[in-house]
Amino acid sequence: MATSHRLDMLSPSAQNPNFLKALVSVDCVIFGFADNELKVLLIKSDLEVYKNRWSLLGDLLRPNEDLESASYRVLKERTGLSDVYLEQVYTFSSLDRHPGGRVITTAYYSLVNIKDHQLKLSHNELHWHPVNELSNLAFDHDKILQTCLERLREQIQEHPIVFNLLPEKFSLRELQALYEAILNTKMDRRNFRKKFFLMDWLIDLEELETDVSHRPGKLYRFNSIHLKDLKAAEIFSSEEEL
Amino acid sequence: MATSHRLDMLSPSAQNPNFLKALVSVDCVIFGFADNELKVLLIKSDLEVYKNRWSLLGDLLRPNEDLESASYRVLKERTGLSDVYLEQVYTFSSLDRHPGGRVITTAYYSLVNIKDHQLKLSHNELHWHPVNELSNLAFDHDKILQTCLERLREQIQEHPIVFNLLPEKFSLRELQALYEAILNTKMDRRNFRKKFFLMDWLIDLEELETDVSHRPGKLYRFNSIHLKDLKAAEIFSSEEEL
Repeated sequence: MATSHRLDMLSPSAQNPNFLKALVSVDCVIFGFADNELKVLLIKSDLEVYKNRWSLLGDLLRPNEDLESASYRVLKERTGLSDVYLEQVYTFSSLDRHPGGRVITTAYYSLVNIKDHQLKLSHNELHWHPVNELSNLAFDHDKILQTCLERLREQIQEHPIVFNLLPEKFSLRELQALYEAILNTKMDRRNFRKKFFLMDWLIDLEELETDVSHRPGKLYRFNSIHLKDLKAAEIFSSEEEL
Repeated sequence: MATSHRLDMLSPSAQNPNFLKALVSVDCVIFGFADNELKVLLIKSDLEVYKNRWSLLGDLLRPNEDLESASYRVLKERTGLSDVYLEQVYTFSSLDRHPGGRVITTAYYSLVNIKDHQLKLSHNELHWHPVNELSNLAFDHDKILQTCLERLREQIQEHPIVFNLLPEKFSLRELQALYEAILNTKMDRRNFRKKFFLMDWLIDLEELETDVSHRPGKLYRFNSIHLKDLKAAEIFSSEEEL
């Protein structure tokens, strides 16, 4: 009969072939927004088998690390960035996902404001790549990117997390362009604004844009009381009357 | 300089102490609903160090398995169930989470209709335990359960997944009791009904409950066109007028 988490199998010297001892890695999907496009940080893979193909930022877990600290280390080593938010999305474990052997990888995603977070390193052609112009990444990174993009699309409809991608003050035009880029769709301007105001995520700064070629728009910032855990759809709130 | 996913470290014979080779496990949080309570499937831990404490259903990954197939195997071995839905939630990797050594575990959650899924096995005191009466589970299983419960609470507000927990035909009274049990809150009956109908998740079967001690309520089923991917909050839909 199966027993769970068998202790006797776990001493470092035990080599029980019934259980997998796997290398573990993290892969970081770092999204940014510039030139009205959603972008992702990529580097050239340094594996011969993936020569000239792009890959996400990742590395193997070390003995003294948990997954989260490995993600922050990778980000720091690869970009020089240390103060960005990372969220775990999914763990990928297909038997053939790594050409060198069994590696189980956990994907994290992050949103960074490209202008405020200048990359401090540039090895392996590290660069911001438009998400819409991607295909044939190394490893299973197409699938990992797609999974993180889907999570991002869900999250922006429920939480005001996109503030990470925008300057502190922004116009509704910029905000809509960001949502359109992430969701890869065009939206009706009037509906977008109505719906956004219904959610009460924004504060009108009573300032206008400057240095723009179009008619200056009003500037807004995110309402910080909502930045932690507001859900757009508090459908089941028991207090509120419809 | 760090390189990602170093191929040369990955041959099975390579024992590079810079990288962790970890045991990997899955833990399954199987939720059910009965007697107006949310329940979870637990067994007695078989580790001496956790004697008499409850634990989730889990096991170590085998060399020929990915995480998903290991989860289904655990569920089948432990309960006899094979046709339930499992969804990956989160991977836990704290250095001290397992007393026997480094084990990284991925949590899955599932919803099953207790009446339709009679347990076919009963070793290690396998049983349905009320979620509200739990504390001090073995390992980090309190945290794993809590994380899965939070995911469940989010998901039921956006997707009609609770159909997995209910009989095919149910009353609004049963549906509200289920939401109240999962969200651990009381709701206003009138608001709950209004909001549920707004979401268009239900089909009125034009039948009444039988064999109930209260006034028979109308019976409903979930609208199957929504069971796959409807979101309650299509806030950013570009077509719809407010």
